[in-house]
Amino acid sequence: MYSFDDLLNYFEDNLKKETFSRQPEELYQPIGYTLALGGKRIRPVLTLMACHMFGGDIKDALPQALAIEMFHNFTLIHDDIMDNAPIRRGKKTVYKKWSPNIAILSGDTLFAYAYQFAQKADKEILGDILNVFNQTAIEVCEGQQYDLNFETRNDVSVEEYINMIRLKTAVLFGASLKIGSIIGGAKKEESDKLYNFALNIGLGFQLKDDLLDSFGDEMVFGKKTGGDILTNKKTFLYLKALELATDGAKKQLLDYYSSTDINSQAKVQSVKSIFSSLEVDKITEVEINKYFDKGLVYLNNMNVNDRIKKELHKLASKMIHRTY
Amino acid sequence: MYSFDDLLNYFEDNLKKETFSRQPEELYQPIGYTLALGGKRIRPVLTLMACHMFGGDIKDALPQALAIEMFHNFTLIHDDIMDNAPIRRGKKTVYKKWSPNIAILSGDTLFAYAYQFAQKADKEILGDILNVFNQTAIEVCEGQQYDLNFETRNDVSVEEYINMIRLKTAVLFGASLKIGSIIGGAKKEESDKLYNFALNIGLGFQLKDDLLDSFGDEMVFGKKTGGDILTNKKTFLYLKALELATDGAKKQLLDYYSSTDINSQAKVQSVKSIFSSLEVDKITEVEINKYFDKGLVYLNNMNVNDRIKKELHKLASKMIHRTY
Repeated sequence: MYSFDDLLNYFEDNLKKETFSRQPEELYQPIGYTLALGGKRIRPVLTLMACHMFGGDIKDALPQALAIEMFHNFTLIHDDIMDNAPIRRGKKTVYKKWSPNIAILSGDTLFAYAYQFAQKADKEILGDILNVFNQTAIEVCEGQQYDLNFETRNDVSVEEYINMIRLKTAVLFGASLKIGSIIGGAKKEESDKLYNFALNIGLGFQLKDDLLDSFGDEMVFGKKTGGDILTNKKTFLYLKALELATDGAKKQLLDYYSSTDINSQAKVQSVKSIFSSLEVDKITEVEINKYFDKGLVYLNNMNVNDRIKKELHKLASKMIHRTY
Repeated sequence: MYSFDDLLNYFEDNLKKETFSRQPEELYQPIGYTLALGGKRIRPVLTLMACHMFGGDIKDALPQALAIEMFHNFTLIHDDIMDNAPIRRGKKTVYKKWSPNIAILSGDTLFAYAYQFAQKADKEILGDILNVFNQTAIEVCEGQQYDLNFETRNDVSVEEYINMIRLKTAVLFGASLKIGSIIGGAKKEESDKLYNFALNIGLGFQLKDDLLDSFGDEMVFGKKTGGDILTNKKTFLYLKALELATDGAKKQLLDYYSSTDINSQAKVQSVKSIFSSLEVDKITEVEINKYFDKGLVYLNNMNVNDRIKKELHKLASKMIHRTY
């Protein structure tokens, strides 16, 4: 049985072959640049893994694994324009290195390539695969729109936030596993369980992101914490804190989050201490574990052999209990 | 047999049913707005017509007709951001009415919906349809990139320009007919002829656009001419003029096209008189007719009945010999 690292190496080797050394270079260089930036490649590996676990040949799932990674990178290119994010993975973002126009158009092109790869499937399952792919693409856009809306709203509920991260982040994990499982020959019932497993793990994954951004160990996390606080991002921690805070602390939080001084370490410390006093870090951990456990119920109910369940359990654990 | 107007009405009636009254409204309102702006709807009608001419049921081609119109509108939403175009079809463009971010994201979403409709086809032909659709989507993006590149280049050749409009405009006409014909049951050979017919008519269509923008009769054209000249757009007329001009006229043209005074009617008059003295208006007419005739050769070589050929001939004539 292939390990995560086996599949990751297989994927990276094949992604490298997609050099995008085409014309016009203004369009294709940003695509090659973005795909080479790296990232954890969890999504495409999930696709390969799901295919493998149902007895499929991983090379049959390679086009869809590439499609999913391309789709994900397309969303990053466009999100970085919308979020004014100059740096990703330690390097300049496409809109910053080239221009917003180049970022819009190379993103669009990468989206079209994602579909070109997604479509490389046996005609008996092509419709099913594209149903998942399309639905997911639409939901990810909806999630990003909610995320943008939240920036200017002051009445976002925790429930709305969870729905946003479900759309923006979790559904693509679900799609990655589901599409792989369809290629591997899984029955619909099993594919759906796998989807729900990944959806819950995906929610936990994003909450872990929120938690690490404020409370990660900087030595392990690899970058400074507090980025979300400095940019007034309405994360689970912030929304939960607002929900729990008394009037005084609530006013303080709202005041901090209306400031645009993005260099204030004092702000980070103060907000973190409000978070800590309300125990939202611990509450977030509990919430993460809740989604982890919920995901595992779906996994345990699946009709696949125990070795595979163990591998997926291990992966989910890695995604959720990570420290960076 | 259905006429163009029959098919147009059928298409409009069905497009109206796609209200996009979904949440989040910030994402879906701009989509509904854009699709309701109108336009000639030539592309989706071509798809329905091609299906019909090969004996197919037009309702089987409706999802793809919708997909093509949605794809086309997605490109308009994004192009308008890139081109800083505040007005389209007499109304504010999406980025102007809402914001660039909303335009990026609602465009992306519309692109995903285009695929969701494109995919609604019988599994026996789905792969063929999506091959055409994907290839075309990628080429249209490439065409837009060349168009953007030309803005800052001073050595664009007529040949490069023709290649750009082939990608940006003509291939989508080709795809519209080809996809419709596949659904109607056409053999590959016939679909390919139809594609090449439309490609050439599409090139003529765009050159006619260039010609009308400078030399159209304003009463018939419905808007002021000279827009391309005022915005220094390197059209076929301009590039041909540069090719033919003597040193003096060439310098004059280059000077005019480095000015950014976009209100100068004197500039429009002067450039037009250079164009006229070099007869580029007549040369453009000749070129348009060349593409028209080339397209008709493909049409005449097709194995379809004469009534259908006549209908397509009429449509091509309407597209190319239009005065507005």
